[in-house]
Amino acid sequence: MTQKRILIVGGVAGGATCAARIRRLCEKCEIIIFEMGSYVSFANCGLPYFIGDVIVEEEKLLVATPELFKNRFNIQVCTDTEVLSIDKANKTLDVRDLATGQNRVERYDALVLSTGASAVWPDIDGINLPGIYALRTIPDSRQIRAALENMTRAVVMGAGYLGLELAENLSKRGVKVTVLQSSNQVMQTLDQEMAAFVAKHLEQHGIDCRLNSNVSSFQQNPDQTLSVNLVSGQQITTEAVMISIGVKPRAQLAAQAGLELGQHGGIRVNETMQTSDPDIWAVGDVVEVRNFITNEWLICPLAGPANRQGRLAAAHIVGKDVAGETALMSYRGVQGTSVCGIFGLTVATTGVNEKALKAADFTHYEKVYLHPGNHVGYYPGAKPIHIKLLYDTRNGKVLGAQALGESGVARRIDVISAFIQMGATVYDLEEAELCYAPQFGATKDPVNLAGMIAANHLRGDHPLARWEELLDTHVRVAENHDEAQQLLALILDDPFAQAQIVDVRTAAEFQQKHIPQAVNIPLDSLRDRLQELSREREIWVVCGVGQRAYNATRILQQNGFRVRNLSGGMQTFVTLQPQIDTDAHG
Amino acid sequence: MTQKRILIVGGVAGGATCAARIRRLCEKCEIIIFEMGSYVSFANCGLPYFIGDVIVEEEKLLVATPELFKNRFNIQVCTDTEVLSIDKANKTLDVRDLATGQNRVERYDALVLSTGASAVWPDIDGINLPGIYALRTIPDSRQIRAALENMTRAVVMGAGYLGLELAENLSKRGVKVTVLQSSNQVMQTLDQEMAAFVAKHLEQHGIDCRLNSNVSSFQQNPDQTLSVNLVSGQQITTEAVMISIGVKPRAQLAAQAGLELGQHGGIRVNETMQTSDPDIWAVGDVVEVRNFITNEWLICPLAGPANRQGRLAAAHIVGKDVAGETALMSYRGVQGTSVCGIFGLTVATTGVNEKALKAADFTHYEKVYLHPGNHVGYYPGAKPIHIKLLYDTRNGKVLGAQALGESGVARRIDVISAFIQMGATVYDLEEAELCYAPQFGATKDPVNLAGMIAANHLRGDHPLARWEELLDTHVRVAENHDEAQQLLALILDDPFAQAQIVDVRTAAEFQQKHIPQAVNIPLDSLRDRLQELSREREIWVVCGVGQRAYNATRILQQNGFRVRNLSGGMQTFVTLQPQIDTDAHG
Repeated sequence: MTQKRILIVGGVAGGATCAARIRRLCEKCEIIIFEMGSYVSFANCGLPYFIGDVIVEEEKLLVATPELFKNRFNIQVCTDTEVLSIDKANKTLDVRDLATGQNRVERYDALVLSTGASAVWPDIDGINLPGIYALRTIPDSRQIRAALENMTRAVVMGAGYLGLELAENLSKRGVKVTVLQSSNQVMQTLDQEMAAFVAKHLEQHGIDCRLNSNVSSFQQNPDQTLSVNLVSGQQITTEAVMISIGVKPRAQLAAQAGLELGQHGGIRVNETMQTSDPDIWAVGDVVEVRNFITNEWLICPLAGPANRQGRLAAAHIVGKDVAGETALMSYRGVQGTSVCGIFGLTVATTGVNEKALKAADFTHYEKVYLHPGNHVGYYPGAKPIHIKLLYDTRNGKVLGAQALGESGVARRIDVISAFIQMGATVYDLEEAELCYAPQFGATKDPVNLAGMIAANHLRGDHPLARWEELLDTHVRVAENHDEAQQLLALILDDPFAQAQIVDVRTAAEFQQKHIPQAVNIPLDSLRDRLQELSREREIWVVCGVGQRAYNATRILQQNGFRVRNLSGGMQTFVTLQPQIDTDAHG
Repeated sequence: MTQKRILIVGGVAGGATCAARIRRLCEKCEIIIFEMGSYVSFANCGLPYFIGDVIVEEEKLLVATPELFKNRFNIQVCTDTEVLSIDKANKTLDVRDLATGQNRVERYDALVLSTGASAVWPDIDGINLPGIYALRTIPDSRQIRAALENMTRAVVMGAGYLGLELAENLSKRGVKVTVLQSSNQVMQTLDQEMAAFVAKHLEQHGIDCRLNSNVSSFQQNPDQTLSVNLVSGQQITTEAVMISIGVKPRAQLAAQAGLELGQHGGIRVNETMQTSDPDIWAVGDVVEVRNFITNEWLICPLAGPANRQGRLAAAHIVGKDVAGETALMSYRGVQGTSVCGIFGLTVATTGVNEKALKAADFTHYEKVYLHPGNHVGYYPGAKPIHIKLLYDTRNGKVLGAQALGESGVARRIDVISAFIQMGATVYDLEEAELCYAPQFGATKDPVNLAGMIAANHLRGDHPLARWEELLDTHVRVAENHDEAQQLLALILDDPFAQAQIVDVRTAAEFQQKHIPQAVNIPLDSLRDRLQELSREREIWVVCGVGQRAYNATRILQQNGFRVRNLSGGMQTFVTLQPQIDTDAHG
């Protein structure tokens, strides 16, 4: 018997893709998928929207059924089947049919582990009380949908993508939602100042969003409601709690088999998705992958990379037999491109964020903020996109970007993702030739503008000041109301010795809101008022979004002043400290 | 006097950008813009939408006024000023103030020609009758807006972007619009089969769109209406005619000065935008540029490239004096990235099209068609994007892409544009890590899918058949009703000797519409029915959009059949011959 026998453990995203691709590359292999749950290849990313009745029919979540796998791909799917252990030496699996309770042994020539990730379940008193849920599967979503009937309030623990999508969908079903986040920001993929904008948006849409909030215990009340007790002493009464504080690789099977794991608990694989055992591959949320930019290992539970890993593993598994027919590829790591829509706000990111650069002691980077419209202002309906771009100051290489806005956000992040993939610099962004018509963009697209601002900086034409220097502190926003007041006081009361702040907006704009110690010299009169400026101290220029200040920077620099532009202008200043206006939770 | 004097002729897009950038790079230069019209830096791309009352206030079209140039940039703008001639030897201009009729001489150290393009005005009897317009300027748009009061019908001559935008906007104002196009397709940037889809869309929105239609004469009727007489003998009665058959470089000034022009009548420039005279630069619609991919000279009247050319010229003009401060750049040519929105359909393109490849005798290319949703199907509201991707079969390099659809079209073309800029291959598209969440995309984004289909082809796993081979003809769709009938007859009556067509959709789908001589073997029963297929003739597989046919191709290929997939499936077949259903004009 020469037919190769390929077993796949886990039939969602990566596993299902891998199986189908193996079949396409090898009609003669025997392929079997073992899935512990009752469904394969379901749309887990759609679950929050099934809760929210945006997706109404449950069957729409079933991307592929066991029947389809059988008929279309000649792949056998064993649902409700648990793989108990791997015998690497004999290349067999111990498998249990959960319906019958019968165990059996399955032989393999190649094994693919696609066991995914499970919700992190915090070790908190009362965590197993009824009314506390995690949303990972279709049965989970059914349970939550059933509970909605008697749910007027819910607490979502964890402000990641899933938690916030859940918050939005519950809110749209009429549930009053409180989001608890133990750290000082929502959405860890963002830097804190960008995340602060999201938190503000959540508040504006009726979500009670509490940062730096840790749960000490849950308790059930006589009326069947739950009390969520916070470390701060606060108590929240609710009908339901959704746990979404993260996921961890389901790597127990791999660990028991002695496969190498990484520092984050995921399975270690090489660039062909092969584990430390040459006959075992692993793909998807269960593996550790390298960051494309920093080369560091991380867990990246995203469906897109899982799919590509599945395809890649398939080529390598099959490639051994059909060498020459398949161009073998190496996994290039993940960029972490991601997107999330929350109450009409799109949040997207690609590459590394500033936190990660700092954590990796990567000091030779700079950042620019900008707030261009998604299309030209003269065409009605333009919406700002708030962008942060990070780049390497040694060579201009684009390191990462974060963007927020109502429209056109994913488009710009996708473009930057393509550029990052190709090793592009800010000079390439500057030169990008992108779609322009009045309703679609601008002759200088937001991607061009980001590149131009950064390139002007690198060419020495546009020295940049960082807001955190102004705020006399490290990169951060106020973590709470008290600190926000302190920061404000710092700006208000301390004569800022380091630089003179010159606000080049109009007098009317200046009067509305300005940095306390700034002086107002509108751009159009700057050339006539140069004598008012000190040549001893550095001048930091600020305007609305950074553009007029850039022009002012050019004028001043060429007139011999030491000058820098506060990147992104007052729009960035406002996002940096929204909690001064909004934080009332302490 | 050491102050450099820089004169700029033409103050829209490229000229205005160039002037502002020169100022930013050089505070000490003297900069003067001469503009023959009454406005500088106005939003000419917005004019059709001003006609359509989408943009209501005229002043929104004024991006920058002479006052702003003066106050913000210390740039003098002379509107209503015509530059009569250039004296290269003495580095002077003869200039006439159109208001006073006074001539004067202006000295320059550097001269920038940004004289733009003018509407091609056809040499047809009656072309100068009242009621015949071209839309290039704000006064033009005022004239057309004024005429709207008595306009119930209009004829738009020319089905390019401007013509179709005008058609849409007039139609939205209640005008019944006929579009006349002399060639066999709308939108020359597209290939014909993609353009046919646009023509169908126009018809569906009430536009009478007539291809292969040439005007022989215009005549004025006693009731002040116009008769448009076609070469075919047809006559159209209308109140207004809009001429939008293209633009030509306004290069007279350059020609008179003896500057080198190119074969298309535009000014020849080197990669720094310098003309054949070292002190004269030229940017925007008046120059010829090189196609980034084919390296051929062309006219590319797009605002984005004009802006980048203006920036680049500025750096080079100023760079001479401030060497070292400015990193000098070379113009890399244009990719022709463009977008147009017509009645809710977005049409976008980047790189070269198949017509251009054929014209350049570039034979080592292949094309794939695909029709993915803008996001996953299980999230409500998914809309198809119709994509054609062209790539180099020698190395997989992406050559160009065209896309049509209601949503997410510009995003995918922008991503492919970025990839083309970086010299990417279809393997890079395959590996792209793009934004995915259910409402924004798919784990395999349309860009990934395009790359995968093409990469599978190049790896030998996915042989492709071209529809035009099936249609036994060159790349084309039916040019008129008669030809459409002939093509259909060809398919219907001729036993297709070259290949057996196997349609792998379900029986129900097959019954709705199929290629006449196709046999139906649904994919899921294909493995059981291999004995029905001939091993002598090639098998061409077809399905809905190409995906099931790809799976069928893999099954058949591995079972020893000679097989190819008809790229894009029945969706492509339908777009290839929409005129069979709709063309009634003959």
